[in-house]
Amino acid sequence: MQAETSQNLTELIAFTKARVNSNLDGIFSLSKPEKRLVEAMRYATMDGGKRIRPLLVYASAKAVGARIEDADAAACAVELIHSFSLVHDDLPVMDDDDLRRGKPSVHKAYGEAIAVLVGDALQSLAFQCLSTQKSNLSESTKLAMVEILSEATGAEGMTGGQAMDLEAECIAMDITVLEKMHQRKTGALIKASVKLGAICNPQVQKKHLESLESFADIIGLAFQVQDDILDEISETSTLGKPQGSDRAKNKTTYVSLLGLKEARKKTIELSKQALLLIQDLPTPATELREITEYITSRVH
Amino acid sequence: MQAETSQNLTELIAFTKARVNSNLDGIFSLSKPEKRLVEAMRYATMDGGKRIRPLLVYASAKAVGARIEDADAAACAVELIHSFSLVHDDLPVMDDDDLRRGKPSVHKAYGEAIAVLVGDALQSLAFQCLSTQKSNLSESTKLAMVEILSEATGAEGMTGGQAMDLEAECIAMDITVLEKMHQRKTGALIKASVKLGAICNPQVQKKHLESLESFADIIGLAFQVQDDILDEISETSTLGKPQGSDRAKNKTTYVSLLGLKEARKKTIELSKQALLLIQDLPTPATELREITEYITSRVH
Repeated sequence: MQAETSQNLTELIAFTKARVNSNLDGIFSLSKPEKRLVEAMRYATMDGGKRIRPLLVYASAKAVGARIEDADAAACAVELIHSFSLVHDDLPVMDDDDLRRGKPSVHKAYGEAIAVLVGDALQSLAFQCLSTQKSNLSESTKLAMVEILSEATGAEGMTGGQAMDLEAECIAMDITVLEKMHQRKTGALIKASVKLGAICNPQVQKKHLESLESFADIIGLAFQVQDDILDEISETSTLGKPQGSDRAKNKTTYVSLLGLKEARKKTIELSKQALLLIQDLPTPATELREITEYITSRVH
Repeated sequence: MQAETSQNLTELIAFTKARVNSNLDGIFSLSKPEKRLVEAMRYATMDGGKRIRPLLVYASAKAVGARIEDADAAACAVELIHSFSLVHDDLPVMDDDDLRRGKPSVHKAYGEAIAVLVGDALQSLAFQCLSTQKSNLSESTKLAMVEILSEATGAEGMTGGQAMDLEAECIAMDITVLEKMHQRKTGALIKASVKLGAICNPQVQKKHLESLESFADIIGLAFQVQDDILDEISETSTLGKPQGSDRAKNKTTYVSLLGLKEARKKTIELSKQALLLIQDLPTPATELREITEYITSRVH
């Protein structure tokens, strides 16, 4: 059983990487704008990255029996938003990270001004991607996708979470504030990925959509706790960014608040809760189950 | 006749300012995210600005006989995109402008990190605004709006133009390159504003849409030439930003390439061309005609 399900996830991961890379490559080749900007946009999005958000889009689409090709645009769009956030997050005025995905971050490779524009253009491209998609989905669903993604990206979602994070650098956060911050900063886009995948089946039942949303909340949290654990324990070479950078910056993390042991326990508990939430979907949701396990056991 | 038409434009300008301010105020009040971020987003968009892009949306909607209230979301969205671009454009790593609309620019008032996030969140909000609009328009039209605006904003439009501008600081531009740069940097969003207004009438004829697109190209260009003229001749207090800042930065402008006299002649010629293009619309397009005259005669 273990072997069989692992096969499923391995296949979906390979499918996701190939599909997202090929689709993004196609998108970048189509546009004929300023060369250096597009080169930097490619640099920020291609070759590298775990593609966890697109993976969630596809896995969620499969879990509700949607046609997987109808999830292509959403899979690209969430990755574009994620990439844009990394580019801006790495800027010297933000987190000031020189290394990303094992190579110099965009502002180190192309300069800060281009890095600002790369992030801006990647965000626009995500919405262009959703609005021009050639899938079988109705215009109503495509429009709903724009709504879900724009809400998850903006002040109520990811960007609002980053602002909370900035403010929090000056004050000590307790676990409630930390959780609220992460729900926005990383959780909102993870939740959007799952929702976008689910609405690729226009007949998806409301109760299944709700289960998936709760599931996404939990794995979003688990993902962040694991991120904090990895920042504490991993080698720089495995992580693709400097090890211990959170601690060096005096950041409040789940590890700093709970300690390593309790943080590890928390990911295991969250993982159990998440699995309960997806046991009544119309399919066995094999990939979503395996992603849940992967999130809490990943090493980078 | 002159008095009557002036009355029309004056009314539409007043309508636009009141309507956009009230709608944006509503949007900002609805969201309950991180307070400081939303405060800074308000600061970047409310109180000030000529609202020329929303004005074009409404004027274009009126010109094709659309219901003006159906243009509300598009009017807000173009202003949000414009505001986001100003916030990022003013950053020290970009144009490094401390003054905007007569007050400290966002990064001077809130810090650079928040300014990056403000721009990001304003962009998302523009697409949220289009996708959640309660107008009478079809979902197909709403989706078309997302497509038009995302294309105009990204690498093929405004952001691509800004990247060209950055690159151009190192080299001397000729008039063709300067024009291409401005077609993207400011022209794309002006064109989008006119198109968005026009599709608020779902029955708009293709030939009228095409005329309006060409019209928008011309006034976008005229707007930029006039901007360059104003940067050269206006007082800092009238302009709301330091006078002569282009020249101080050794920027290639229409004035630096053509001289002041020829640049002025160019705006007048462009204005004549623009008026020809809108003479066969289904309405007299009074406001569009007056905006054309305003663009070439404005003093700030």
